[in-house]
Amino acid sequence: MANRKKKITRNYLMHPEGSVLITTGDTKVICTATVTEGVPSFLRESGQGWITAEYGMLPRSTNVRNNRPGPTKKANGRSSEIQRLIGRSLRAAVDMTKIADYTIQIDCDVIQADGGTRTAAITGACVAMQDAFTWMIEQGKIMDNPIREMVAAISVGIVKGELVVDLDYEEDSNADVDMNVVMTESGKFIEIQATGEKDTFTLEQHIELLQLAKDGIIELIELQKKALK
Amino acid sequence: MANRKKKITRNYLMHPEGSVLITTGDTKVICTATVTEGVPSFLRESGQGWITAEYGMLPRSTNVRNNRPGPTKKANGRSSEIQRLIGRSLRAAVDMTKIADYTIQIDCDVIQADGGTRTAAITGACVAMQDAFTWMIEQGKIMDNPIREMVAAISVGIVKGELVVDLDYEEDSNADVDMNVVMTESGKFIEIQATGEKDTFTLEQHIELLQLAKDGIIELIELQKKALK
Amino acid sequence: MANRKKKITRNYLMHPEGSVLITTGDTKVICTATVTEGVPSFLRESGQGWITAEYGMLPRSTNVRNNRPGPTKKANGRSSEIQRLIGRSLRAAVDMTKIADYTIQIDCDVIQADGGTRTAAITGACVAMQDAFTWMIEQGKIMDNPIREMVAAISVGIVKGELVVDLDYEEDSNADVDMNVVMTESGKFIEIQATGEKDTFTLEQHIELLQLAKDGIIELIELQKKALK
Amino acid sequence: MANRKKKITRNYLMHPEGSVLITTGDTKVICTATVTEGVPSFLRESGQGWITAEYGMLPRSTNVRNNRPGPTKKANGRSSEIQRLIGRSLRAAVDMTKIADYTIQIDCDVIQADGGTRTAAITGACVAMQDAFTWMIEQGKIMDNPIREMVAAISVGIVKGELVVDLDYEEDSNADVDMNVVMTESGKFIEIQATGEKDTFTLEQHIELLQLAKDGIIELIELQKKALK
Amino acid sequence: MANRKKKITRNYLMHPEGSVLITTGDTKVICTATVTEGVPSFLRESGQGWITAEYGMLPRSTNVRNNRPGPTKKANGRSSEIQRLIGRSLRAAVDMTKIADYTIQIDCDVIQADGGTRTAAITGACVAMQDAFTWMIEQGKIMDNPIREMVAAISVGIVKGELVVDLDYEEDSNADVDMNVVMTESGKFIEIQATGEKDTFTLEQHIELLQLAKDGIIELIELQKKALK
Amino acid sequence: MANRKKKITRNYLMHPEGSVLITTGDTKVICTATVTEGVPSFLRESGQGWITAEYGMLPRSTNVRNNRPGPTKKANGRSSEIQRLIGRSLRAAVDMTKIADYTIQIDCDVIQADGGTRTAAITGACVAMQDAFTWMIEQGKIMDNPIREMVAAISVGIVKGELVVDLDYEEDSNADVDMNVVMTESGKFIEIQATGEKDTFTLEQHIELLQLAKDGIIELIELQKKALK
Repeated sequence: MANRKKKITRNYLMHPEGSVLITTGDTKVICTATVTEGVPSFLRESGQGWITAEYGMLPRSTNVRNNRPGPTKKANGRSSEIQRLIGRSLRAAVDMTKIADYTIQIDCDVIQADGGTRTAAITGACVAMQDAFTWMIEQGKIMDNPIREMVAAISVGIVKGELVVDLDYEEDSNADVDMNVVMTESGKFIEIQATGEKDTFTLEQHIELLQLAKDGIIELIELQKKALK
Repeated sequence: MANRKKKITRNYLMHPEGSVLITTGDTKVICTATVTEGVPSFLRESGQGWITAEYGMLPRSTNVRNNRPGPTKKANGRSSEIQRLIGRSLRAAVDMTKIADYTIQIDCDVIQADGGTRTAAITGACVAMQDAFTWMIEQGKIMDNPIREMVAAISVGIVKGELVVDLDYEEDSNADVDMNVVMTESGKFIEIQATGEKDTFTLEQHIELLQLAKDGIIELIELQKKALK
Repeated sequence: MANRKKKITRNYLMHPEGSVLITTGDTKVICTATVTEGVPSFLRESGQGWITAEYGMLPRSTNVRNNRPGPTKKANGRSSEIQRLIGRSLRAAVDMTKIADYTIQIDCDVIQADGGTRTAAITGACVAMQDAFTWMIEQGKIMDNPIREMVAAISVGIVKGELVVDLDYEEDSNADVDMNVVMTESGKFIEIQATGEKDTFTLEQHIELLQLAKDGIIELIELQKKALK
Repeated sequence: MANRKKKITRNYLMHPEGSVLITTGDTKVICTATVTEGVPSFLRESGQGWITAEYGMLPRSTNVRNNRPGPTKKANGRSSEIQRLIGRSLRAAVDMTKIADYTIQIDCDVIQADGGTRTAAITGACVAMQDAFTWMIEQGKIMDNPIREMVAAISVGIVKGELVVDLDYEEDSNADVDMNVVMTESGKFIEIQATGEKDTFTLEQHIELLQLAKDGIIELIELQKKALK
Repeated sequence: MANRKKKITRNYLMHPEGSVLITTGDTKVICTATVTEGVPSFLRESGQGWITAEYGMLPRSTNVRNNRPGPTKKANGRSSEIQRLIGRSLRAAVDMTKIADYTIQIDCDVIQADGGTRTAAITGACVAMQDAFTWMIEQGKIMDNPIREMVAAISVGIVKGELVVDLDYEEDSNADVDMNVVMTESGKFIEIQATGEKDTFTLEQHIELLQLAKDGIIELIELQKKALK
Repeated sequence: MANRKKKITRNYLMHPEGSVLITTGDTKVICTATVTEGVPSFLRESGQGWITAEYGMLPRSTNVRNNRPGPTKKANGRSSEIQRLIGRSLRAAVDMTKIADYTIQIDCDVIQADGGTRTAAITGACVAMQDAFTWMIEQGKIMDNPIREMVAAISVGIVKGELVVDLDYEEDSNADVDMNVVMTESGKFIEIQATGEKDTFTLEQHIELLQLAKDGIIELIELQKKALK
C-alpha cells in the first residue's frame, strides 16, 4: 500500500539547460534536458522539433552490479524499451511545432534503484524539460511554452492479492500483475502498459488499478508544479 | 473496421520442431519453435524450463528497405521490445515446471509486413510452440502438454475517430490511439499496451477498445484450435 | 545424379520492385531487388550504376539453429563470401552504363536450406533483377533492358566417386570435390569455384564437372525465361 | 593558485559494499567498491586478489553532451586510460595477498565535471575501497585491513606562467603543462604523469610542480582519514 | 609475361614456432604459425587437429590507407574470404589425425601489397607451418611430419588479351579474367577460383590458364623446398 | 646497464609518404606517415593542421599470440593509451599552423616486441613524419619544414635495485619502477610517465632516472639526424 515519499530537486547539475534529481523512496534518478539545434533527418523541413530520451543505470545502482554498456556488452532490451517509453510520453505532452528545428535530448540516469525508475524518470524529466524550455524562451530561441500539459507516471500492481501503488523493488519482484501508467494533468492517458508477470488479470482488476494510478499521478503533478514555482 | 482474413499453416518448414506461417491480410510471419536442452544460468537447478523469442524482418518485408542487423547497425529498440513481449506472452501460457531443463527458442520472421506483425507473431508462435511440445512428448522428453491455455494477440486502435480491430499499416500510421492486447483462451489478460500515438485517450475509450480486442482474440483462438486439429 | 525439381515464382512479395521465390528440391530462397537512387562514392560521376547483394539465412532454415547476426555475433565469413559472389555474378550480366546513377540492392534470404542456396540465390536474383529493370523502364527511369544475357548458377561435385549435379545437403556434406559455376545464356563462364573439400582433383575431373554444370545451367536459364514470359 | 574546497561523503548509496561522493570545487564523482568472489584467470591459484576500476561520465556531466558508450560508439581512449590509472594506483596501496581470491571492482562515475575528475576518482575510491574492506572483515571474508597506506591524487600545472594546484576546467584548458600525481601517505610516489600540453617544460619546473602536488596530496589524505573516522 | 622475383626467408621473427617472410615482386607478406593445445568444439574427441588462418594488411601496405579493423569498422568481406581460402588450402595438405588435439593458427600479415597477396600468403604459410611441425616433433608433441604434400598457390589472368602469371597490382586491376589456383606438389588441385572481372571466359581459356598456373606453382614448390633445406 | 643496439631504416615501404623501420635490440616497429587533406571537425577553419597516431601489434609480435582487433574483441586500453601518447608527442614537436588543412596520420605497427615498443614508435615516427613533410614541400603543399625540434623517447626503470635504460621485455617485467620519457632536441620534456609497477619511488630516484633518460634521448636524436642526412 506504500505510496513512497517523493522529492524533486531542480537545477541539480550546473551544465545542462534543465536538470532534476527525483527521488521516490530509495529510488534516485538524475534527469537532464539538453537543447540542441537541428532535428533528425525524417523531420527536416517539417516545421516540427523532436524530443528523444536515453536511460542508463550506474553499475552499482542495483544490488548486483550491472556491467557498463559498451562494444562487447549485448544490447540491452530493457533500457531501449524504457527510453522509447520516456521519449513517447514527453512528446505527447508538447506542441512540437513550437520547438521547430530544435531537438531536446533527455538523459535519465539511475543513481540508486529501488523500483519505479522508469516512472520516476518520466516524472522528473518533464520538469527538467520545462526548465529547458524556460531557458529557450529566455534565450529568445522560442516564443512561448510548448508544454500543453504536465505529464507524470506511476507504477501500480497486484502484490500478494493486494493493490499497491508506487511499488518498491521488493514489491515489484513479487507482483503478480504490474502496470506502468503515464497520464496528463487533465486525466488523459498517454500510455498504459499492463503485464501479467506471474498471473493473468481480469478487466475489473485492470480498471481498479487504473483508478489507483490516476490518483497517484495527480499527486505527482502537484509535486511537479510546486517544484516549478 | 477491417477484421482481416487470417490463415495459419502448420509444418511450414522441414527442419524446426514446430513451424507455422501465419497471415493476416497482407502480413506474413514465419514462426518457428526450436527445442534445446539446458536453461539460462539464472534458472539452473530451479526445476523450470525457459521460453525466449527473437523477432526479425526481411529487409524488403516493408515498403522501404530496412538494413540487415549486424555489427555496424545500431541496436534496434523496436525489435528488442517486440521479442521481449513475445517471450513474456508465451511464458504466461505455459507451466514452466513441465519443461524443466529445456529452453524453447521462438523465432518470428516477418516475410511481408502490413501492420500487426507483433500480434500475428504471438498468435502464430503459440501454435508452433504447441507443435514443438507435441514433438517433445513423442520423443519422450516431457510427459504431458505444458500449455495451460492457448494465447493469442490482436491490435486495436482509434483511427479518424473510429474504433478499428486488426489494423493494417495504413490504419496503424493514422491511428490516434494504438493498443496491443494479449489474452488467454479463458478471457484473462496477459498484456495490455495502450499508446496515445497522436492523441491522449480516456478510460472509457480504453475499455471499449479492450472489449473489441477480446472479441478478436476469441476468434483467433478458434482459428488456432482448428489449425491444430 | 539427382537433378532436383526446380521452380521460380515471381512477384512473391508485394513491396519490392522485383521479388522471386526459387525452390530447388527442399531449398527455398526469397530473392528481392530494390531500386535506389545514387551510387557508392567510388562510382560517382562515372556514368555507371551499381548492383550489390546481401545474403541471409533464417535461424531455423537449417537443421541446427543459427544465431541471428547482430552486434555480439562474430562476423560471418561464409555469408560475406556468398554475397560478394552474388553481386559479382549479377554485375557481369548487366551493362552498368544503362543503369547510371542507380543502385540495385539484391537480398537473398534462405527460408529453408538443403544445399545449393548460393547458386539458387544467383539464379533467382537474376529474375528478380529483371523484374526490377522492367519496373524501371515502366517508370521511365531507364530506356531499355540493361541485362546483356541471363545468368544462372549450379553446383556440381564428386560424391563417393560419382559426379553429381545440384547437390543436396547430404551430398554436399559427403562431397570430395565441390564446385559452384556461374554461366551466361551463351555458355560463357562468369565464375568457377572448385574446392577439394576432402580430396584433391585432377584437371580431367575438373573439365568433366564443368561440362555437367554447363548442361544444368542451360536448363536453369530455360526455366528463368519461361518464368519471365 | 586555487586549491578548491573538497568534501568526502561516505555511504552515499545503499547497495554497494563501499560508496563515496567526492566533490572538489564543482567536480562531483561517485566512487563505489563492489566485492566479488574469484579473480581473473591470470591470477588463479596465485594466492592474490585483484582490484580493477571503471570510469564513466554522465552525458551531461560536461558542458557539451557526451554520447553514451555503446556498440556504435567508438572506443573511448581517454576513459580506458583513466580506468587503468585508477586501478594501478589502488593496487599499489594494497597487500594483494590479504584479499586472495577476491576481486574489488571500483566504479567511478562523474556526475559533474569541472576538472580533476581522475584524481578525485582515485582519492574517493580509496575511501570506498577502505569501507569495502571493513565490510569484508565484518563478514569474516578477510582477517585484517589489506591497505598498506592511504593513497590520494591531485593535478598540478602551469597556467599562464603560474603554478596551480587542483586545476578547474578553465585552468586545465589553458594549462601549458599539466601533471597528475598519485602518492601514498608516507610521501612515496605511485604515478607521475606530466604532459606538455601547449609547451615543453624543464626539469626545474617539473620538480617544483611535484613539490606542490606533494603538499596537496598530504591535505587530501588528512581529509580521507577524517572521513573514515 | 611477368613472373616476378620470389624469395622465402625462414625464421623471420623470434617468437613464433614458424615464421616466414615471403616476397614476390613488391608484395611482402609475413606468415607465422602458432601451435596451441586444444581444438575447436566441433572437433573435440574426433582424433583430429585443426588449422585455421587469419589475414590482415598494415594500413599503409597499400597506396591508399586502409582503416584498421576494430569495433566500429564494417566487417571486411574480402579478408574473411581470403582467410577461409588459406585455412582450407593448408588443411588439404595435412593429415589432420597426426596433429590430433592441436590447433595450428596461421597469421598472414601483408606488409606491402602489389598484387597476389593471398597466393603469396598460402605459399609462405605452408613453409611456416612446416617449421612449426618440425618444432612439434623436436618437442615430442607429434611423431612424424603431418604434411602429405607441399602446397603452393599462384594467380593467373587475362590482361589486355594476354595470358599473365603472378599478376602485380597494375595487371590485376586491368585483368578481364582473374584466377587463383592452389595445387599440391604432385599436380593435384586443391582450389580453383576463376572470376570474369570485366569479361566472361570460355572453357578453352580456362584450361590454358590452368596450365600456366601449374607451371608457376611447380616453380614455387621448388623454392619452398630449397628454403626448407 | 643495457643500452640496446638501435637502427633506423628510412623508405622501408614503397607506398607511404614517409616510412621507417626502427629496431632497438629485438624490438622492431614499422612507422608510416600518411598525408591527407582536411582536418577533424573541431579544427575546421582554425588555420591549423592535425597529427594523429594509431598503434598495433602483429598477433605473433609477442611470445603469446594476441588476438587481432575486431568487432568481437574487447577494446584495448593499452593500445589506445599508446596511440594517444604518440600523437601528443609528435604534435608537440610541430608548428601546426604550417600544416594548415592537412592531417598527418601516423601508423606504428610492431612486427616484433621485446620491450620499449611505444618509445621506439615515437622515435621512428618522428623520422617518418619528417620524410612526409619533405614530400609535402616537394609537392608544393607546404612552404617550409613544420618541425620545430626533433623528438625522441626512451624507457628507463629500476630493476632489482639498479637503474636501467631502454629496458627489454625481461627487464620491463621485473621492473619495480618504469618510466617513459619524451624529450626534444634541446632537452625540454614533452611527457614524463612514471609508474611504480611493483614498488613506490622517491623524488630522488625519479630525478636520477630522468637524467638517465635525457642521455639516452640525446643519443637517439643523433641517430635520427644521421638517418635523415
